[in-house]
Amino acid sequence: MLNFTVGPVMISDEVRAIGSEQIPYFRTSEFSEVMFENEKLVKKFAKAGKNARVAFLTGSGTASMEAAVINVFTQKDKVLVIDGGSFGHRFVQLLELYDIEHEIIKPDFGHGITAASLAPYEGRGYTGFLVNLDETSVGVLYNIKLISEFCRRNNTFLVVDSISSFLCDPFNMEELDVQVMITGSQKALACPPGISLIVLSEKAVKRVYENRPKTMYLDLKLALDNGERGQTPFTPAVGTLLQINRRLKEIENSGGVDAEVNRTKARAEYFRNKLEEYNLPFKIISYSLSNAVTPLTSTNGKSAHDIFIALKDNYNIWICPNGGELKDKVFRVGHIGDLSSADYDTLFKALFEMCENGQL
Amino acid sequence: MLNFTVGPVMISDEVRAIGSEQIPYFRTSEFSEVMFENEKLVKKFAKAGKNARVAFLTGSGTASMEAAVINVFTQKDKVLVIDGGSFGHRFVQLLELYDIEHEIIKPDFGHGITAASLAPYEGRGYTGFLVNLDETSVGVLYNIKLISEFCRRNNTFLVVDSISSFLCDPFNMEELDVQVMITGSQKALACPPGISLIVLSEKAVKRVYENRPKTMYLDLKLALDNGERGQTPFTPAVGTLLQINRRLKEIENSGGVDAEVNRTKARAEYFRNKLEEYNLPFKIISYSLSNAVTPLTSTNGKSAHDIFIALKDNYNIWICPNGGELKDKVFRVGHIGDLSSADYDTLFKALFEMCENGQL
Repeated sequence: MLNFTVGPVMISDEVRAIGSEQIPYFRTSEFSEVMFENEKLVKKFAKAGKNARVAFLTGSGTASMEAAVINVFTQKDKVLVIDGGSFGHRFVQLLELYDIEHEIIKPDFGHGITAASLAPYEGRGYTGFLVNLDETSVGVLYNIKLISEFCRRNNTFLVVDSISSFLCDPFNMEELDVQVMITGSQKALACPPGISLIVLSEKAVKRVYENRPKTMYLDLKLALDNGERGQTPFTPAVGTLLQINRRLKEIENSGGVDAEVNRTKARAEYFRNKLEEYNLPFKIISYSLSNAVTPLTSTNGKSAHDIFIALKDNYNIWICPNGGELKDKVFRVGHIGDLSSADYDTLFKALFEMCENGQL
Repeated sequence: MLNFTVGPVMISDEVRAIGSEQIPYFRTSEFSEVMFENEKLVKKFAKAGKNARVAFLTGSGTASMEAAVINVFTQKDKVLVIDGGSFGHRFVQLLELYDIEHEIIKPDFGHGITAASLAPYEGRGYTGFLVNLDETSVGVLYNIKLISEFCRRNNTFLVVDSISSFLCDPFNMEELDVQVMITGSQKALACPPGISLIVLSEKAVKRVYENRPKTMYLDLKLALDNGERGQTPFTPAVGTLLQINRRLKEIENSGGVDAEVNRTKARAEYFRNKLEEYNLPFKIISYSLSNAVTPLTSTNGKSAHDIFIALKDNYNIWICPNGGELKDKVFRVGHIGDLSSADYDTLFKALFEMCENGQL
């Protein structure tokens, strides 16, 4: 099995080995130490400020998206949100659900945002900004520097879902004045799915404690309070948190976050260079790529979903399919997880064979 | 390491082996088949009706407790709730949080409920009933037959958190007219924590579709809709769901749920009989025991928490500590998970040694 999806991804042998161990009881000082280390390393890799905090939720990324929206915004806010794919659209749905006033920025398909996209909203009193840094569904990376500058000028509270971009693209939470950053265990952290993480700046922590969202499970006050003693309010996915710990230390011991970003970049470049060299009947659909994933479409009308199925059934290789209206148009090849250039060579070999068989 | 806590528990070699495998991509028909089988077997073991459904949430048990409360009750309900420990109290807090009218039944410490406990609420128009079947925090099993009859007479919608009782104590969802049953992956299902399950009767499914709770992550309509195609709305803890599948099939192939209940019962009886025989300085504090766990207190004033720490640090054995005001008074010995009588012998050996050393 060879997995090029954007989550769950290929997991290293060391991290997988933990998955076969017994799960320890967690209301112990030993587990608290693991959690303190997790928080310290995540803060370090996000380049968050000294007083930032990390909440570890047992849940999908969407749990953290919802938690972020309801813990740092209220109905008094006026939020700008980038709706460039299914994850951006999920933020829109959350804002609608919670009756938070908002304006949608909808980039052209495959495109990022420009200064011109933001200009109409300048000086209009937006108090919040929501963006999926890498809109994973279509592989579009937004220009975080532009957004950050907009937010600084407009005194806008910036919340970034960095789920597939964290550890893949350069990012500095403190320098960019990002107040909330979200990610998940099954993306570049390359652990099993089940934990989502929220990094909160000092300002964001303050907001969390001022807010009273109607939720128990997603109440970040409980997560932060318990986090002070290295614990979670409810039984967490203990095994996954131990795996995250191993993986964070692996990154730390292999040169830290910048080296990890470079490794992801090298994988992305290897794949993209070979793709061009081999002249396969695919076209990259994003004009603003993240290192995490390459979104592709067939240039000769083949269904993206059929290609996904053929690779799965005939080669035991997974690329990442799309859903909804993009089902037949777009597939994605990920560059996160325990993948090597040899793995991409295996993928290309399968694709050549499919070309010969008329399947591409 | 030997783990007698009530979750996470000891996991079988077969289930743990899955934890070391790569996690498959899940938007596939193969994973849907696994989920269909999970739903079928959970329904079978809960003895749920033909048209019942199962929602698999990636989250702690509390996620499902909250989901149950907000998806099947509204502010028009008037709910009876048994508050006999920290989990019953969590239901009370959820009802308070969501402004749902409720009345608390508080059994005496260590006691279950009787017909007399319910009598004052007869014919008073209660539309809902919330109970933790086995109040895990103090090991008290409530008389579900009494509660069921009360609910039938009063046309009351019965929601049961069966988290530590499922697969341990006899239970028949359909016969007992239980509309919602909650459990978790890390209790008698003996898998890693990270998934909680909600079994919904046909009536409960109807309520879910009539309700409009303000939540995305805990909206059971999304879970049920996606479940129809064997999927979840958001990336689930795929690995844990595969482990649940293995474990459910293990139970099915070893005589089904009744045989599993008997195995748990045998473990509980072995421990309790030996405890009496050996005359250790402990007393069982519950007058209404579940097969899942035995709650104990020291008869000569030793701190329960100190006993927990000594067993952990000196013997690598975990019993289950209590928190809050019971911290020094109560500890628990679980009977769920991959445990044998030889494991209890190991525990007793350690306890004898501690007696000799004056630690008990």
